[in-house]
Amino acid sequence: MSSTLVVHHLRVSQSETIVWLCEELGVAYDLKCYDREQTLLAPDVYKALSPLKTAPVIEDVDTYQPNPEHIKLAESQACVEWISRKYGQGRLINKPWDAHWKEWLFWWHFTHGSLQPALQMKLLTAALPKDHPGAKVADSRIEHYLQLIDERLGKSQYLVGDDFTAADLIMVFPLTTMRAFIPMDLSAYSNILRYLKEIGERPAYQRTFEKAETKLKPMLNANPPSLFSM
Amino acid sequence: MSSTLVVHHLRVSQSETIVWLCEELGVAYDLKCYDREQTLLAPDVYKALSPLKTAPVIEDVDTYQPNPEHIKLAESQACVEWISRKYGQGRLINKPWDAHWKEWLFWWHFTHGSLQPALQMKLLTAALPKDHPGAKVADSRIEHYLQLIDERLGKSQYLVGDDFTAADLIMVFPLTTMRAFIPMDLSAYSNILRYLKEIGERPAYQRTFEKAETKLKPMLNANPPSLFSM
Repeated sequence: MSSTLVVHHLRVSQSETIVWLCEELGVAYDLKCYDREQTLLAPDVYKALSPLKTAPVIEDVDTYQPNPEHIKLAESQACVEWISRKYGQGRLINKPWDAHWKEWLFWWHFTHGSLQPALQMKLLTAALPKDHPGAKVADSRIEHYLQLIDERLGKSQYLVGDDFTAADLIMVFPLTTMRAFIPMDLSAYSNILRYLKEIGERPAYQRTFEKAETKLKPMLNANPPSLFSM
Repeated sequence: MSSTLVVHHLRVSQSETIVWLCEELGVAYDLKCYDREQTLLAPDVYKALSPLKTAPVIEDVDTYQPNPEHIKLAESQACVEWISRKYGQGRLINKPWDAHWKEWLFWWHFTHGSLQPALQMKLLTAALPKDHPGAKVADSRIEHYLQLIDERLGKSQYLVGDDFTAADLIMVFPLTTMRAFIPMDLSAYSNILRYLKEIGERPAYQRTFEKAETKLKPMLNANPPSLFSM
């Protein structure tokens, strides 16, 4: 079976989000998996897939054009929007007239606008003394953001009311698998832990790991095993 | 004159993007400006505006709800989408059936998904030795991203074809005013410099600085003055 849509999954990376999206939407796709090098970096064959050199990358045929064109696309949120709008009737993406639209806008953009930059700063602070001002900035931002997420999840089942949306899809990677690189203790955040437990019960999330991450267990607990140190 | 929409602008910050958006769209708004503390941080009165404690913040009345509600919203891209859809008929935001939609998706999400996290890492690396692996990672990412932007702007006037879009709005701050904190030499990127020159000629961009940044000159040259060191 061959589909037009190809998802290139770099193992232990953000591209798990795209596999998961396809499973949630029930979209047909071809999955190509790549292991990291011993250096933990993506192999050259993965880097060659897109100018960005990072995961995710999808391939597809752009039938929006008068002359359909074979394309490659990177950036998680861009891939999510492409697949949802082209194959999923825009499902999981809120519209201006939907309830909770302002919450949708905030949480859909918060993960990459605020949370992930702080986590990426944290990666660097491993090289700094614990009391270095830069290390403190990253730690206090992350703590603040986790509190916000936890408060929100104390008020509704998902980030945007009680319906699972693409804002959840984008949020779960930094709270889970990204901890393979950046240890993060979630014990103080009971609502986040409740949320991750329920995410782990979603059949589409389970199928994502069965198909794309056979050696990796979903990191849904307060303290998952630390796989890598950077 | 009083509008429902209020833009809270922290001077020398990302909220210039939201002022600029309102000027581009010709939307009526009330502008409230705040100076940074001597520490360069936002004053407490600004931090109190939103749980995120960062710029931008907008206030508005959410008329999408059956019972209109006074709201505050943070995150740049969220504010851009809110204002464009509510007051600008969705102008500057591409739709799936528009030409260049795949480019739109990529560039709209690239700034916060890739470029700004690398710049925020760069802020921290000021504390590390020049040859530290972390410092090298941030530098090589930024150089790579600037090359991508420059290549793109060698092919079209704006990031998404020859029409100015919200992807440009979001891109300009990290290439310009963010350099008040993070020095970045753009001499090697002639297409970016051509682009910034044209951005500087846009009446809406000029009005943004006249209204919101009377003491700051737009940082459109290869090497703007370095205002702050963090």
